[in-house]
Amino acid sequence: MSLVVTGTIGIDSVQTSSGSAEGVMGGSCTYFAAAASLLGPVRVVAVVGDDWPAEHESALASFPQIDLAGLERRTGSSTFRWGGKYHDDMNERDTLFTDLGVLEEAPPPVPDQYTDSKIVFLANTHPAVQAGMLAHFPNRELVVADTMNLWIDIARDDLGSLLQRIDGLVLNDSEACQLTERSNLVEAAAAICDMGPTFVVIKKGEHGAFLHHPDGQAVLPAMPLDASQVVDPTGCGDSFAGGMMGHLAATGRCDLPTIREALAWGTVAASHTIAEFGLGGLQAATEESMRERFDRFRSITSF
Amino acid sequence: MSLVVTGTIGIDSVQTSSGSAEGVMGGSCTYFAAAASLLGPVRVVAVVGDDWPAEHESALASFPQIDLAGLERRTGSSTFRWGGKYHDDMNERDTLFTDLGVLEEAPPPVPDQYTDSKIVFLANTHPAVQAGMLAHFPNRELVVADTMNLWIDIARDDLGSLLQRIDGLVLNDSEACQLTERSNLVEAAAAICDMGPTFVVIKKGEHGAFLHHPDGQAVLPAMPLDASQVVDPTGCGDSFAGGMMGHLAATGRCDLPTIREALAWGTVAASHTIAEFGLGGLQAATEESMRERFDRFRSITSF
Repeated sequence: MSLVVTGTIGIDSVQTSSGSAEGVMGGSCTYFAAAASLLGPVRVVAVVGDDWPAEHESALASFPQIDLAGLERRTGSSTFRWGGKYHDDMNERDTLFTDLGVLEEAPPPVPDQYTDSKIVFLANTHPAVQAGMLAHFPNRELVVADTMNLWIDIARDDLGSLLQRIDGLVLNDSEACQLTERSNLVEAAAAICDMGPTFVVIKKGEHGAFLHHPDGQAVLPAMPLDASQVVDPTGCGDSFAGGMMGHLAATGRCDLPTIREALAWGTVAASHTIAEFGLGGLQAATEESMRERFDRFRSITSF
Repeated sequence: MSLVVTGTIGIDSVQTSSGSAEGVMGGSCTYFAAAASLLGPVRVVAVVGDDWPAEHESALASFPQIDLAGLERRTGSSTFRWGGKYHDDMNERDTLFTDLGVLEEAPPPVPDQYTDSKIVFLANTHPAVQAGMLAHFPNRELVVADTMNLWIDIARDDLGSLLQRIDGLVLNDSEACQLTERSNLVEAAAAICDMGPTFVVIKKGEHGAFLHHPDGQAVLPAMPLDASQVVDPTGCGDSFAGGMMGHLAATGRCDLPTIREALAWGTVAASHTIAEFGLGGLQAATEESMRERFDRFRSITSF
């Protein structure tokens, strides 16, 4: 089933306990699309400025099944830039700077050939922008969104409206608690579904993921990694969503057993992302390395 | 295969965000034995003072397959008492008081009829006491121990000696990091096996458990529970070990697939324990409720 993602593409400067990287590729759409493309075709709707490095475009285009027809390079605008520093345990980070740039302007146009997209992923950006995108996909059959603490803080009404128009929500554990004012994740997930979505996936970083679905739950750990495989968590959550949605699109199903498998594919994608700064980890991944790691993950979690 | 546990029996006073309980049954051996007895027979070696409440003895004796022939009631001595207060998230706790009582005296004798025990679990107590117990079980085929931060701090040499005499170690994530001076759990687990044990199980509380074994890894989440099912985490780690070892004893095997299943049984046991103060959660459990929850846990973790 055709999968389209809308979201941000940016230029990141990142510091972690493993080192630092200046001017690497970032943005929610970037990581999602790269991860999803390892499982099937993915269409991208995003906008960058004319400062976007050519090597970033060629790196993104090098993913085999990524369609960049909906990537606008806007002359006279600046690409979104983000800088952050992770704490030693990599579970927390401080934002050092955010230059919204082109994200403060009009959203990118959606190519005509994308309007038949069946599966829409609204990667993290302002919920009003996310909601505005839906009109471009009249044939949508499944809509899943990501969000973040910033929008819960400053755009809760827009987020509330969006929640009533989507089938699934993906968000972090702390964000789920913030959104619902509950400290128990099982209860937070149920409370989010009361706000609109049919299912919710709570990402717990190194502790895995939890699914609340009307037909049942799923709970998965993260992939165990040694320290050399943990370099930069930036984009892991977006890659998780990319692997997850890539599997739903590849199978054309969205029942509970398929979502459970999809969570495992998301875990596998995120485990590649964290191994290097920027897109390096996903660039090193192949269909074979994804499958090999999926099989290993299934093996170590089965009993 | 015959399973014996040596460890502590105590009287606990506990405060959690759900409430408080005075004078409930506590101790590493207590929770282990109660959990293991839901899966098969378990022999107990422990000592209490003459202040041990009769209702505690009858509660412990009410577990169907628990053998208390090795439980000494020592006249003129005081039962071990512990008081603690959990932080709001229940992942951390402060010890309010510890009265070692009879634990400072000679260890309890081991009944002659226990000496043919094949599987020995050394529940948490001083590592020198743990090591001293081994001589009583000349037919032992599998020895697994638990330990805690206190012994890493004050009895590291004794613990080091013990590690060379056991097949498996069970401990918390923070303790694994403390013991090995590593922050990565995969590496900490491998480093512990370099100290002696063949396998190590790292308990991560609400985040599940991780197994390092020469034949491979296992990683499991915890059972997702809503707030009403999370009352008191005291004894969850010991119950986890009890469920795990109870399954190994019931099957008579200790290969990787069996340990993986055993970790799931440990998870199920701990999920009962946390639901009430003291032994209440395990008293409410039955063979059927354990099996039902095991099947549900397998279902929500499978993909």
